[in-house]
Amino acid sequence: MNIKGFTFSAVEAAIKKPGRKDLALILSEVPAVCAAAFTRNKVKAAPVLLGQERVAGGTLRAVVVNSGNANACTGEPGLEAARETARLVAAAVDLPETEILPSSTGVIGVQMPMERVKAAIPALVSGLAGGTLDDVARAIMTTDTFPKVAFREGSSGGKAYTVAGVAKGAGMIRPDMATMLSFIVTDAAVEPQFLRSCFLAAVDSSFNCITVDNDMSTNDTALIMANGMAGNSPVDAMSPDSSEFVRLLGEVTLDLAKAIVKDGEGATKFVTIKVCGAVNDSDARVAAMAVANSPLVKTAFFGQDANWGRILAAVGYSGSEVDQTRVSLFFDAVQMVSGGLFVGGDAEARGSAVLHNPEFCVTIDLGLGDGCATVYTSDFSYDYVKINADYRT
Amino acid sequence: MNIKGFTFSAVEAAIKKPGRKDLALILSEVPAVCAAAFTRNKVKAAPVLLGQERVAGGTLRAVVVNSGNANACTGEPGLEAARETARLVAAAVDLPETEILPSSTGVIGVQMPMERVKAAIPALVSGLAGGTLDDVARAIMTTDTFPKVAFREGSSGGKAYTVAGVAKGAGMIRPDMATMLSFIVTDAAVEPQFLRSCFLAAVDSSFNCITVDNDMSTNDTALIMANGMAGNSPVDAMSPDSSEFVRLLGEVTLDLAKAIVKDGEGATKFVTIKVCGAVNDSDARVAAMAVANSPLVKTAFFGQDANWGRILAAVGYSGSEVDQTRVSLFFDAVQMVSGGLFVGGDAEARGSAVLHNPEFCVTIDLGLGDGCATVYTSDFSYDYVKINADYRT
Repeated sequence: MNIKGFTFSAVEAAIKKPGRKDLALILSEVPAVCAAAFTRNKVKAAPVLLGQERVAGGTLRAVVVNSGNANACTGEPGLEAARETARLVAAAVDLPETEILPSSTGVIGVQMPMERVKAAIPALVSGLAGGTLDDVARAIMTTDTFPKVAFREGSSGGKAYTVAGVAKGAGMIRPDMATMLSFIVTDAAVEPQFLRSCFLAAVDSSFNCITVDNDMSTNDTALIMANGMAGNSPVDAMSPDSSEFVRLLGEVTLDLAKAIVKDGEGATKFVTIKVCGAVNDSDARVAAMAVANSPLVKTAFFGQDANWGRILAAVGYSGSEVDQTRVSLFFDAVQMVSGGLFVGGDAEARGSAVLHNPEFCVTIDLGLGDGCATVYTSDFSYDYVKINADYRT
Repeated sequence: MNIKGFTFSAVEAAIKKPGRKDLALILSEVPAVCAAAFTRNKVKAAPVLLGQERVAGGTLRAVVVNSGNANACTGEPGLEAARETARLVAAAVDLPETEILPSSTGVIGVQMPMERVKAAIPALVSGLAGGTLDDVARAIMTTDTFPKVAFREGSSGGKAYTVAGVAKGAGMIRPDMATMLSFIVTDAAVEPQFLRSCFLAAVDSSFNCITVDNDMSTNDTALIMANGMAGNSPVDAMSPDSSEFVRLLGEVTLDLAKAIVKDGEGATKFVTIKVCGAVNDSDARVAAMAVANSPLVKTAFFGQDANWGRILAAVGYSGSEVDQTRVSLFFDAVQMVSGGLFVGGDAEARGSAVLHNPEFCVTIDLGLGDGCATVYTSDFSYDYVKINADYRT
């Protein structure tokens, strides 16, 4: 994978447990057009507050990201630590500090160990010579059990380009080991407004369609940088190749989002929830999310119990328009419910067999209109409780 | 406890496991003024659909309630079964069937075993001679581990009266073993409109302020019947004794609501969440409910982890107005957070000591206004997952 003009590095700065890299850098040779989605949590980490300002500038040169400390609920000293981290990198690579985006994930409420960050900067910058995107994916892991990287290759006006990204766990987010983070880079040239609109749409169909426990961290960040080094004419809504770029970006973000669900804390099942036949797409999403977030539905998935009653109850309280006499429900291709009633026969045994698979799809047809939505979730296991009940170590 | 003019009965109709009573009757000698709150779930059980009509009539003589079968998602045959149950009781006690409210809790999607219900009616009616409210409390249990009964005694215009009630588990509701049910009876005479408004207010401050897993069943019902046999002049908003009646009713419903939380599936902690300093009461409640429902907060309670970061994150995403620099947080009397920042010192050790108690209070002061709310919740334990992952037996 070659993303022209981007270099990567990761080092151990002793912010988290010894023996694990915890500070990473993504650098573009030239200013990259950027767009980002940040947490809507009103309690925002210091680097999110700073990041919102810097992304508004329209271009970035680098992202410096640490794991092990969220730099959240740290007040003015936390904001100064985020600024100082960017300033240290800026000085080392000779760039304006406002072109550097700081990002953090880890424990809430603890000040950043700035002496250790400062000491690690020279090695971080010199590491750019030999680092890879995979190094970054590993350095941002907290409770993740595997690194998350995805990429696609395409072309625009005869110029080959790559869209690549990394992500770390969320959904099953632990606000103290905070965060969904994702950084996407591409060497394609993309018109800024178009980049922003198609990135926000991609985030909405991927990272915003996954849930593990319905908690939202203080640090959630998804960022894209497009540096144009592929040499194509900037892709915009009118370009003949725009749909290919949109599709590839959507695939990268969806791959990363699905990887996050599969790595959900304690997850043993990967479940796709499809709602169709809603009065509109928004209602479909509300209903799908209610099912995906219900602890009762999720424990039933863990128990491999074809418990359609809990799913119907979740749809019923979701807020979506529902006429219970028109609802159908399927586990993969096995119909369980028709007109709101259990279909009988051997459906119980066949539905239960579907739930014994590690991945399956629940389809709910509300029978009211054309609204559709798909979301992704995991089950709720003993291990989810165990991981999250353990003391912050 | 003597609630004049009310009699009670419970029998085993073989709807649920052998050896447990599962059909109960509450009968008033005279028509009782009634009011009720039903589930807002759009998927409603048959007896809820019928009950809404019958409560609208303004008076009731009896409630017939079964456990073991929710009579939900059962279509037209389910509605007929609910009507038939009321009709059988009506015939046996010589009353109009529209004065009998049927109610159900149990498995979703299974038709009622009407032959067994019919066969049990004679014993149910003859049992009225010797039954008690406690018998009813036991007969409506499903996954509850103890019966829930509460009562208070008061007087109005020199006439003694009693307010008494029963409830069964919810919050930790299992929509397949559905439901929060509560039946309150009083021999006080109460003006109908006043009864309705003070009952809905009492429900709002009790049953609507508890949560175990944020699921809402298809069968939730809270009903009050006031038969006036105490002989007082009807209590209304102008009565000198109205505030006493309101207080006693509020205490009975709150006692029952707290008992439900304490009996939450797998619960090991009883936690009061108080939010004050919100811009208004509605915001305070939204924030308190977000904390009370967060799986991450609840697993931290189970782990006895003084994890204020997760609580602040939940407040942040609740939708309430929040300025993170003004938030204070306490575990009982131990202040953990001031101005959005950890207070330091020995707060971690002292806060953790509080969380080792079986009951404690989390107070969050948003520092913005006068809005307050209190809700009650439990922790999320291994046993919650175990109970809900087990097959429907």
